[in-house]
Amino acid sequence: MTEPLRLGIAGLGTVGAGVVKIVRKQAKLLEARTGRRIEISAVSARDRQKDRGVNLANYDWEDDAVVLAKRDDIDIFVELMGGSDGPAKAATEAALAAGKDVVTANKALLAIHGQALAEAAEAAGRVIRFEAAVAGGIPVIKALTEGLAGNEITRVMGVMNGTCNYILTRMESEGLGYNALFDECARLGFLEADPQLDVGGIDAAHKLAILSAIAFGTQPDFDGVEIEGIERISLEDIRQAADMGYRIKLLGVAARSPRGLVQRMQPCLVPAGSPIGQLEGGTNMVVIEGDAVDQIVLRGPGAGEGPTASAVMGDICDLARGLRIPTFGIPATQLETMPAALTGMPAPYYLRMALMDKPGALAKVAAILGDAGISIDRMRQYGHTNNTAPILIVTHKTTRAALDMALSAFEKTDVVASEPVTLRIEEV
Amino acid sequence: MTEPLRLGIAGLGTVGAGVVKIVRKQAKLLEARTGRRIEISAVSARDRQKDRGVNLANYDWEDDAVVLAKRDDIDIFVELMGGSDGPAKAATEAALAAGKDVVTANKALLAIHGQALAEAAEAAGRVIRFEAAVAGGIPVIKALTEGLAGNEITRVMGVMNGTCNYILTRMESEGLGYNALFDECARLGFLEADPQLDVGGIDAAHKLAILSAIAFGTQPDFDGVEIEGIERISLEDIRQAADMGYRIKLLGVAARSPRGLVQRMQPCLVPAGSPIGQLEGGTNMVVIEGDAVDQIVLRGPGAGEGPTASAVMGDICDLARGLRIPTFGIPATQLETMPAALTGMPAPYYLRMALMDKPGALAKVAAILGDAGISIDRMRQYGHTNNTAPILIVTHKTTRAALDMALSAFEKTDVVASEPVTLRIEEV
Repeated sequence: MTEPLRLGIAGLGTVGAGVVKIVRKQAKLLEARTGRRIEISAVSARDRQKDRGVNLANYDWEDDAVVLAKRDDIDIFVELMGGSDGPAKAATEAALAAGKDVVTANKALLAIHGQALAEAAEAAGRVIRFEAAVAGGIPVIKALTEGLAGNEITRVMGVMNGTCNYILTRMESEGLGYNALFDECARLGFLEADPQLDVGGIDAAHKLAILSAIAFGTQPDFDGVEIEGIERISLEDIRQAADMGYRIKLLGVAARSPRGLVQRMQPCLVPAGSPIGQLEGGTNMVVIEGDAVDQIVLRGPGAGEGPTASAVMGDICDLARGLRIPTFGIPATQLETMPAALTGMPAPYYLRMALMDKPGALAKVAAILGDAGISIDRMRQYGHTNNTAPILIVTHKTTRAALDMALSAFEKTDVVASEPVTLRIEEV
Repeated sequence: MTEPLRLGIAGLGTVGAGVVKIVRKQAKLLEARTGRRIEISAVSARDRQKDRGVNLANYDWEDDAVVLAKRDDIDIFVELMGGSDGPAKAATEAALAAGKDVVTANKALLAIHGQALAEAAEAAGRVIRFEAAVAGGIPVIKALTEGLAGNEITRVMGVMNGTCNYILTRMESEGLGYNALFDECARLGFLEADPQLDVGGIDAAHKLAILSAIAFGTQPDFDGVEIEGIERISLEDIRQAADMGYRIKLLGVAARSPRGLVQRMQPCLVPAGSPIGQLEGGTNMVVIEGDAVDQIVLRGPGAGEGPTASAVMGDICDLARGLRIPTFGIPATQLETMPAALTGMPAPYYLRMALMDKPGALAKVAAILGDAGISIDRMRQYGHTNNTAPILIVTHKTTRAALDMALSAFEKTDVVASEPVTLRIEEV
């Protein structure tokens, strides 16, 4: 029998407690599957007194995660504290320096400091695993890094923030506005301490930057992600989109393009009947496209104690079984740097605005679009209220640059009453 | 630099040629991802003269796959010949005995001889990998064996025969009968040499037996799979099901039950709006449920050169990276034997039959169902044609035993004009 594999777990929130529960409950199963006993040596969290619904009496307690990370009696440092800097980063660095492997659920840490950490891990001959950092219980890091290793990946897409998807699907199903649903999410505990991480698209963008690095063999480049949150999505847009056969999703898209690496996390219209369009509530979905496999769609719970702990345990089992892969699939020193593509691939756009009640208003708008080289696929004008008339335009494929040119021309006219809403329509 | 990893590929059909293409085209990428050069030493197939659209000049040729399997200059024997016995089995055994790892796409071989082969592999200190054997390009073996290793798996379901799903979805969309679509599939080359493997549900049952072994830690038990093909599904049933909000799918279900291991591969009704209900054409879908992760849904191409070769390459990359896992996730000697559950969990059933035009006919049918303890959820009777009237019944949850009792009571009456069609309604 080989030696047991000893864990040090830092962070005992929902996920940390979930990992402790699985290690205790499934000890026999885990040993059969990995050939090693999996044990917890010590744990660390902020508040020692808090009841976490799990018996911690047999594990040493460390107040300081950095001290935990360096203990001689742990093989894997399990980082479940969160936060891109501070104790999570310090303890991860300490663990690697002390010769420990690291399993983490921390997307912010990896999206922002992933390159430096990957280099540190490889210099120390250690590995970092992070299945739980992206799309909760879905084994997407494994699918991309290992299962599809024979593919040149061409595109990765994903709905990866459950809170945003919950808000957007409830806006449509309940007819409630964004603010009411934001408040509901706050009450239900669905929001991060800083809600901008969720509704501002930042959390999902962290995940996209990680997927992108693995998919394209590039250094994680969170700063290169074009990010737009869902705060400005109105019930009106949800309804109009639905009426035309679309749903609005906070969708991440990453692809290599001739102009550089495309990384976008923004609200988009997708066909209502597509797998992404049909995704309800807090469920996540990741779509991976490769030259050999064509397209794989993975769907599952994006958060929660069980699913996230399941992903952490998958990583721990991999390490117990001896799997050792560079952090982002290839050695950190071989990861390319690629400029961010400033303009994405052309796409159709959804455009909503209010026209002033003046003769020739619509003609002016149409002329501006024509001058910008944008052709109209579908247009609807509604009756006037308060001297303005809502209009809705779906364009044929155009570039963001052409659209921006048209938007700035609209501003100089006296016929557009409010700032136009523009949303990309993504082919999924 | 470590030594190159040397392949011997037996079988150069679509998949074999696809693997050769990827090894040649992606040599640099594969080396970056695995840290080893991946090379082909020798190949083997029936016909040396055939043009396979790929340059084989640099590889040694063996007429006999067994000879290939034993060559000193290969590390991995890649078995892509197919067939549960004959050369595929002989060569796989020879490879293991000669100390080679094996990568195979052969579901029949593993479903039927998996236990013996897993034992042989472990006795020889070698591993067998078979991602391509189940659900084509979807990395489902990896998800189940590795990604979800922290879960006690509770249920696995799948639509895993693209040809059957193509026939069933085209019956609905085109209004064509089963025979016309069978002929179309034959013309398009969608059918195995023995079409019963496809339309009889056998190929999909092979896959289910493999998933089941991994999910529940049991010896693969193909004989324990209750199998029913799609040959008896009529356009009438497809239409009636659609009309009530269902689709008919050849669905595999595996679960542990108090009475033993449930393994069913049979046509079922599933809600038309569910992910499985929406699956069109040759696409495959596997649903995995675990105690921690809840539910994961994986979707992708179930066959074809690129997707299947992608799965084979994933296995080869795993071996190149040093991953070594027992065939079915735990050592073969620890796999349990579990009796097949002869009666599945209760479920609602769809029942279609024709009644004779006699007074009291419907009352007799209803009385028989009542006597068998089966209650009716929905019932429709249509007008008489040729002295018979079609009726359609959806029952509340009942057992197959109760239903069989009712069916044999129907036979003894003089009011049921044709053998009733019964289909299970699966909650997915």
